[in-house]
Amino acid sequence: MTQAIDRLKQASTAAFTGLKCKECGAEYDATAKHVCDECFGPLEVKYDYDVLRQTVSRETIEAGPHSIWRYKPFLPVATETPIDVGTGMTPLVEAHRLARQLGLKKLYIKNDAVNMPTLSFKDRVVSVALTRARELGFSTVSCASTGNLANSTAAIAAHAGLDCCVFIPADLEAGKILGTLIYNPTLMAVKGNYDQVNRLCSEVANTQGWGFVNINLRPYYSEGSKTLGFEVAEQLGWQLPDHVVAPLASGSLFTKIYKGFQEFIETGLVEAKDVRFSGAQAEGCSPIASAYKEGRDFIAPVKPNTIAKSIAIGNPADGIYAVDIANKTNGTIESVTDAEIIEGMKLLAETEGIFTETAGGTTIATLKKLVEAGKIDPDEVTVAYITGNGLKTQEAVQGYIGEPLTIEPKLDSFERALERAHTLNRLEWQQVLV
Amino acid sequence: MTQAIDRLKQASTAAFTGLKCKECGAEYDATAKHVCDECFGPLEVKYDYDVLRQTVSRETIEAGPHSIWRYKPFLPVATETPIDVGTGMTPLVEAHRLARQLGLKKLYIKNDAVNMPTLSFKDRVVSVALTRARELGFSTVSCASTGNLANSTAAIAAHAGLDCCVFIPADLEAGKILGTLIYNPTLMAVKGNYDQVNRLCSEVANTQGWGFVNINLRPYYSEGSKTLGFEVAEQLGWQLPDHVVAPLASGSLFTKIYKGFQEFIETGLVEAKDVRFSGAQAEGCSPIASAYKEGRDFIAPVKPNTIAKSIAIGNPADGIYAVDIANKTNGTIESVTDAEIIEGMKLLAETEGIFTETAGGTTIATLKKLVEAGKIDPDEVTVAYITGNGLKTQEAVQGYIGEPLTIEPKLDSFERALERAHTLNRLEWQQVLV
Repeated sequence: MTQAIDRLKQASTAAFTGLKCKECGAEYDATAKHVCDECFGPLEVKYDYDVLRQTVSRETIEAGPHSIWRYKPFLPVATETPIDVGTGMTPLVEAHRLARQLGLKKLYIKNDAVNMPTLSFKDRVVSVALTRARELGFSTVSCASTGNLANSTAAIAAHAGLDCCVFIPADLEAGKILGTLIYNPTLMAVKGNYDQVNRLCSEVANTQGWGFVNINLRPYYSEGSKTLGFEVAEQLGWQLPDHVVAPLASGSLFTKIYKGFQEFIETGLVEAKDVRFSGAQAEGCSPIASAYKEGRDFIAPVKPNTIAKSIAIGNPADGIYAVDIANKTNGTIESVTDAEIIEGMKLLAETEGIFTETAGGTTIATLKKLVEAGKIDPDEVTVAYITGNGLKTQEAVQGYIGEPLTIEPKLDSFERALERAHTLNRLEWQQVLV
Repeated sequence: MTQAIDRLKQASTAAFTGLKCKECGAEYDATAKHVCDECFGPLEVKYDYDVLRQTVSRETIEAGPHSIWRYKPFLPVATETPIDVGTGMTPLVEAHRLARQLGLKKLYIKNDAVNMPTLSFKDRVVSVALTRARELGFSTVSCASTGNLANSTAAIAAHAGLDCCVFIPADLEAGKILGTLIYNPTLMAVKGNYDQVNRLCSEVANTQGWGFVNINLRPYYSEGSKTLGFEVAEQLGWQLPDHVVAPLASGSLFTKIYKGFQEFIETGLVEAKDVRFSGAQAEGCSPIASAYKEGRDFIAPVKPNTIAKSIAIGNPADGIYAVDIANKTNGTIESVTDAEIIEGMKLLAETEGIFTETAGGTTIATLKKLVEAGKIDPDEVTVAYITGNGLKTQEAVQGYIGEPLTIEPKLDSFERALERAHTLNRLEWQQVLV
C-alpha cells in the first residue's frame, strides 16, 4: 500500500499535475481513470502552464532527443527514461509537385507514414501510454484497434518487455493482422466492427487488471498526438501554419493537434495565430462530417462501410469536440468516396513519392476537394497530415495501379515493351488529365 | 557543348575530385562511368582527405540536417540542394532484450527498416544517385532491382520529378511490386533471376541515355552506403563498435560501411580501431560465404534459391572485396537456412519490436549462429544492420506466426479465448526455450 502511494506521488511532475474533467472541471489524481465520477465526461491531463513557461524554451526543446520526447515537459509522464524507440520527428516535406497540381502556393506533408517503429502516428500515442502504463505499475497492456494501434501496441510492448493483448475487428487488412502477430502478442479478432470491439474492451478493462491504452489510459495516450502539432510548429521554424487538414476517426488526433498549437502559444514558444482546422472523413463512415454539415451538437452513430478501415469509427468519442474546433477556427469537415480515396493515394505517391494508407488517401482527396471548392485559399500555408503507411493496406490499391510489363531477359523484348509502355503512359496520362 | 563542359566543371567539389579504378588506379572525370577503360576494374569515387580534414568536424556535421546529407562533404555530389526526403539518421537501438537472449553484453540494432521514404537502406544510395543523376543532366533514371531498390528509385524519382523505368525479376514478393507500381514508374518484370535482370540492364544502359543508379551511376550510388558507417559512429558518441554484422547481397553495403569507418578515422573524426566485420548470407544464395569458407580469391556464381530475395544475388559484383574485409578484420562470413531466417525475423520482432524483412532475418540468424559458435565475444560492442522492413515480405512469415483467436463481441467469449491463449502461450514458450 505504501508502495502504491509512493508510486502515485512520483507519478506527476511540477508541470503535469493530475486529471480534470473536460465537461464539469472535477479534478482527479493521475491514475488509470478516464471517465468523470460526477458527470461521466472524459478526463484530460492537467498542466501548470506557469511552470512550463518558466522551464521550457525553444533551446531546451532543440537540445532534446530527436523524437517526441523532446517535448516531455508537455507530456503526462514523470520518468526520466521514457520508452524511446525513435518515435516522432518525422519529416515535414514541402510538397512542391503536389502543390502545383492542386494550385496551392505552399503545401507541406507531415509524413507519419514513416513514423517509428510501426509506420503510423499511433507510435506517438502508444509510446506515451506504455511509458505511463509502466509508471502506474501495469505489466499487461491492451487496446481496441482498427489496425495501426494494434501494430504499435504489440511492437512497443515487445520492446519494453510488457505482456500484451490486442483486440481488432476480425475483417482487418491482412498486413495489419500479420504486422501485429509478428510481435507475438495475444491477438483477439472480434467478429464485429470497431465500435463493438471498443465496447467489449470497456468491459474487459473492468474485469482484468490491464492497462488499456485507449480506454483507462486514454487521457495519457491521447496527449501523444499533441506532438504532431508541436513538431509542425518547430519544423516550420517556430511558427504555425495557416490551415491544417487531418483525418478524423475518433476525432482525438484533430483536437490534440489543436491543443498542441494552443499550448505552444500559451507558453510563448510561438506567436498567437488563428489556424484553420479542416477534417477529412470517408463517406462510408462520416458521422463527424454529417454532424458538422447539419449543424448538430451531437454525433449520430453510423455503421462503417469504407475501405478506410483505420478511420472507420462509427461512434467517435471526440467527434463533437472536432466539430467544435472546425467551427471556431473557420475550417470545415468534408467526406470523400472510396474511389476518391484511392485516387488520393495515387496522387500523393506519383507527385511526392509518399505511399500512404487509405486514411492518408482520405486526407489528400479531401484536401483536393477543399481547394477545388475554394475552401482553402491558394495563399494559405497548408499542412496535410499523413498518418499511416500504404504497405499496410495493399488490398485497397490492388487492381488500380496497373501491372508490370512482363518481358524476356533480352534487349528486343525490352524495346518492344518500352514502346508499349510509352503508348500506355500517354493513355493513362490523358485519363489523369481529363 | 559549352553547357556540357560547364556542367562537368561544376560536377565535383574541393573534396570530391573524380573517379579512380579500384584495381589499377587509373583516374577519370566524374561522369556517368563505372568500368575502367584500362583493366575493366570497377571505378570508385576519389576524395581529397586533406581538404576533408581541414573543413569537416564533429561540430559541422552535428549542425547539419537530420539526414544522410549531414555527411555531404563525404558524398559525391556538388549541389548545395541535394534531394532530401529525410533519408538516414535511423535509430541505433540498444537491444537489451535480444542481447540478454543471445548472451551478449552490448548489442545495437541499426534500424533501416524505418528508413525514409521506402523503408530500406536503399533510400540512402538512391538519394545520392538521383542527386548525382540530376547534376549530370539525366531526365530518366533506372535500376536493376531485387525489390527494395525498385521501391526507392520509383519513390524518390517521383518526388524529384524524374522519369523512371525499373527492372525487377518477375517472381518478386507482391509487396515489393505494388510498392513500386504505386509511384507510377515504367515497371519491367523480367522472366529471370536478378543476375539476368542485371545483364539486361547493362545492355539497356548502353543503348538508352538513362542514368542507371546501380550501373553507370554505381560509383556515386554505392557511396550512399557509407552513411550507415558514419551514423553508427556518430550515434555511438563518435566512436566505433567492436564488431559489425551485416547482410551480403552484392557485397557493396559491407565494403562501404568499412570505408565509412576508415574515412572517419582518416579525417580524425573517430579514434582508430580494429572493427571486426562479419557478413550474413542465405544458404540458398551464398556465393560469398562459400568463397570465404573455401579460402578462394574468386566468386563462383550460383543460381539463387531462397526466401531472402532482396539479397539473392548469385554473381555479386563486390563479393570478393567483402571476403577480403572479413579476412583482414578477423571477422567471418556465415550462411543460414530459410527456416533460420524466419526464426531470426520472429526473434527480432518478439524481443525488440522491430519487424524486418527476410534480409534482416538473415542478419539476426547469422548473429545468433556466430555468438553460439564463439565467433562473437560476449564483451564485444556489436552492431547488427537491419536493412529493410517486414511489411514488404509478408509471404515469408505467413503460416509461421500463428493466427488471431477469433471471438464474438462478448465477455464470456473473450474469457474462454484468453484461457485458450494462456495454454497456447505456455506451449509456444516451451518450444522457444527448448
